[in-house]
Formats: sequence, structure tokens, C-alpha cells
Amino acid sequence: MQKPKWVIEKEQSKRLAAAATVWLFGLHAVRDALLNPARIRLRLIVTRNAADRLADAIAAAGIEPEIVDARRFTAPLDPQSVHQGAALEVKPLDWGPLAEVCLAGEDGRAPMVVLLDQVTDPHNVGAVLRSAEVFGARAVIAPARHAAPETGALAKTASGALERQPYLRVRNLGDAMEELRAMGYVLLGLDGEADIPLPQGLAGLAGRPVGLVLGAEGPGLRARTRETCDMLVRIPAAAEFGSLNVSNAAAVALYAAAERG
Amino acid sequence: MQKPKWVIEKEQSKRLAAAATVWLFGLHAVRDALLNPARIRLRLIVTRNAADRLADAIAAAGIEPEIVDARRFTAPLDPQSVHQGAALEVKPLDWGPLAEVCLAGEDGRAPMVVLLDQVTDPHNVGAVLRSAEVFGARAVIAPARHAAPETGALAKTASGALERQPYLRVRNLGDAMEELRAMGYVLLGLDGEADIPLPQGLAGLAGRPVGLVLGAEGPGLRARTRETCDMLVRIPAAAEFGSLNVSNAAAVALYAAAERG
Repeated sequence: MQKPKWVIEKEQSKRLAAAATVWLFGLHAVRDALLNPARIRLRLIVTRNAADRLADAIAAAGIEPEIVDARRFTAPLDPQSVHQGAALEVKPLDWGPLAEVCLAGEDGRAPMVVLLDQVTDPHNVGAVLRSAEVFGARAVIAPARHAAPETGALAKTASGALERQPYLRVRNLGDAMEELRAMGYVLLGLDGEADIPLPQGLAGLAGRPVGLVLGAEGPGLRARTRETCDMLVRIPAAAEFGSLNVSNAAAVALYAAAERG
Repeated sequence: MQKPKWVIEKEQSKRLAAAATVWLFGLHAVRDALLNPARIRLRLIVTRNAADRLADAIAAAGIEPEIVDARRFTAPLDPQSVHQGAALEVKPLDWGPLAEVCLAGEDGRAPMVVLLDQVTDPHNVGAVLRSAEVFGARAVIAPARHAAPETGALAKTASGALERQPYLRVRNLGDAMEELRAMGYVLLGLDGEADIPLPQGLAGLAGRPVGLVLGAEGPGLRARTRETCDMLVRIPAAAEFGSLNVSNAAAVALYAAAERG
């Protein structure tokens, strides 16, 4: 007998969360993760100075810090990481299944989500998480493979949003899109070659849940992703040359969708 | 006898352009600069492989490349620079005086400009240049000091826009704002604490030249900059926490201003 889909999803989500650990770094990111009750924290490595500056957050988290000398900072980080003497090993956050996270809430506003098709740059995904939080998107959704993993660099660019903004990794983006559509979402794919300008695409979607689908710079949306969208829209451009960075395109689309009424 | 202001400005702009040189790197940025007739090019250092891939652009520019071995790439770049075997020394572009660049043009659309108050991160400024080009802003204006200089890293993030989108460095941002106001610009300062939402601030400005003024993350607009604005506006946020990255805020403001009618 096959397990129901929601059981498989719940198990998968648990497995993903259990599989890997992440080293967050930098005073800001480490403080945010220490203060987030949903974070499973494993090890905190700090200099004496960083421990003093994080004293309140360390006390609130109830974790025993490992104090190290600044010249022998032992956390396994990239040499270029600006760690400011603070590194925290954590489990990725488990936000639960898509159907729960993306359900229309009690705030009365039509929900929005962002879907990222093979956007692998952690700085771009970090910035998208920030914008998604500001404009009140339910989630940023990306495939488990070929997407930026939850890393210290992503956390730093997200500037706290990683702790608060659901970042859902799904096995298959197309399946997630179908699931959202079944929940009433209208899926708008952003494509510079599309005929319909973004404001026109959003007109008439007041009160409807909206999913904004963005691809990586260069390749854009994959063929299957494009076909699974309800509509392709373009951000109106004045210039013949140039293109928006993917996080800037996401910010513009989120703003326009949030203002759709 | 004192020189007229425009003479001083022209001389200053020439001095700035003559003062320093910039090493651009990466196949994309080097190609764009080789193909830009307005670029003064000094030295091109390339591997044999990069020379082959840039052959058409090198021929078009009429520059003699210095071919070096990939393992002994001699251009004076940051060790982290992903140069792809290509580095080009250039003069910063001279876009001429503000009054000329920001004048209402013949395209019949009301002009826009972006003003950056102490935004020093080259990646943010590079992304702002890209968005400014896409939405058709006349210029991105920043002070000569306390702003991101035209560097290889900025050029790479700007993804070609540095060659096409005027990036004006002025001695004093407040004076530039007054000059723009005298030219008919309405200056909107972006401030998360402002009372007026951005769409409301832009309503009624159809056909008027608009300047969008953004500060650095954290400190925001300096007091004098804030006071020199005609109006302070905020990007409407759904969330209590979080804030937009400065390039994302600029993209949203440019989109909204471009759509103002």
C-alpha cells in the first residue's frame, strides 16, 4: 500500500532537514539564529569579544559557547567569510509542507509566493528572501536540487530574513506549481520576451492568490516551467539593452503584485 | 574674475576622468568596453584563449593585446577577481555635465534620475545601474567621495550597463539636487519611516521629471539630503520586520516612477 502524498512529503521534508548542517557566520546572522526558537542549534564558536557582544542572545538560546582565540578561529568556513568572530552550526529550518505554508491566511489578503527556477546564486536568493518578507509573500519555493542551498553566505545576504521567511525546497518545481494551482493560485512567469506587460497581467487578479515564477539570468525559465505557468508577463523596459538582476526583477514583481488591490 | 559654473564643472569632470584608471576584467565586461567607442583604453592583457574569444572586439577596438600565460596573469587585480583571462585598463567614462545629461530629451517622456547618498558597495551600485538602464533613467548620480568608484567589480555586477548608463560623480550631492530642482525635477527621498506611500507620492507627478534619492542601508539618507528632498516616501511593506536591499529598493522605485503615466 502506498503512503498518502502528505505523509511522503512530511517524511521527505524531515529527511532534508536532518541530512545536513549549516554554518552561519557574522554577528547579525548568528544573533538572528540564536534568537529564533525554531532553530536547532548544534555548536557555537565565538571569540571572547563576539561572546560579549552576543551575550544576551547566547543567554536566551541557552547554548554553551566554545570560546576561541581570534587568531585561531576554528569554525569550518570559507576563508573569505567575514565571520566577525562568530559561527553557529545549525540545522536547516523545517517550514513544513507547501500546502500548509501557502494556504490563504487569516489576514484577509490574497497570498503571494515566489518560485525560483534554478536560481543558484546565494546572494540573489538571499536578496529575494528579504524582498519576499517585506512584501509579505508566504514562501520562496525552489527545487531541492539546482537551487541555492541554505548557507552562511545566503543567510548573510538575507540579513535576518532567512529566520523568518519560509524558504521551501521541493522535489519537483513543476509538481509544486500544479499543487499551488489546485489551491487557487494563478502562476505568472516572468519572461523578457513575453507579450503581456506585468501591470496588465496583474489587472483583474485582485483577491486571487498569485505565484511569481522567475528563472536564472541568462537561461530564464526552463521549457516545462514556462508551460506550467498560467501567463507569461514581462517587466516593461524603456531600454533596448540590458536586463534586471534576478533579485531586482523579483522585488519589482512582488511590489506590483502586492499593490494589485 | 571667477570662472562660470559650467566651465568649473566641465574642468572638474575632465580632471576626475583623467585622474585615475580602472582595470576591468572578465570576458563580458572587457568585451563591452572594447566595443564602446566612448572608452579610452590603455592596456589589454589577455590569455591566448581569451584573445581568441574576444577577437572580433579586439579588432573593432584596434588595440594591441598583450598575450600572457594563463598561469602568470600579470594584470593588477584582486586575487578573487574572476577575470577569465581578460583584463583591460581604461579611463573612467566622462559623461559630461549634469545639466546636459539630465535635460528632458526628445523622446517625449518625463525624465527620471537616481541619486545615491553614500552607497559605497560596488555590487549594489552595479545592480542600480542595470535597473536604471532598463527603466530608462537619465543618470545615476553619486558624490565623488563616499560612493562606489567605477571599478572592475562594479562593471561586472553592472553586466554591461556601466558602458551605456551615465554614472555621474558630483562634488556635492546637495548642490546637484538643487540644480535638478531648478531644472524642474521633483525629488523623492526613499525613507522607511516616511508617512507617504510611494504610489501616493508619485500620483500627480505624471509628465514631471522625477529624482529618486536613496541612502545606504542602515544609516539611510543623511539629514541634509533628507531636507533637500521635496517629499519623503516609503515603499509599502506588509511585514513588520525586514528591509529591502538598496538595489531592490531602487528597482521598485524606478518601476513605480516609470509607470507613473
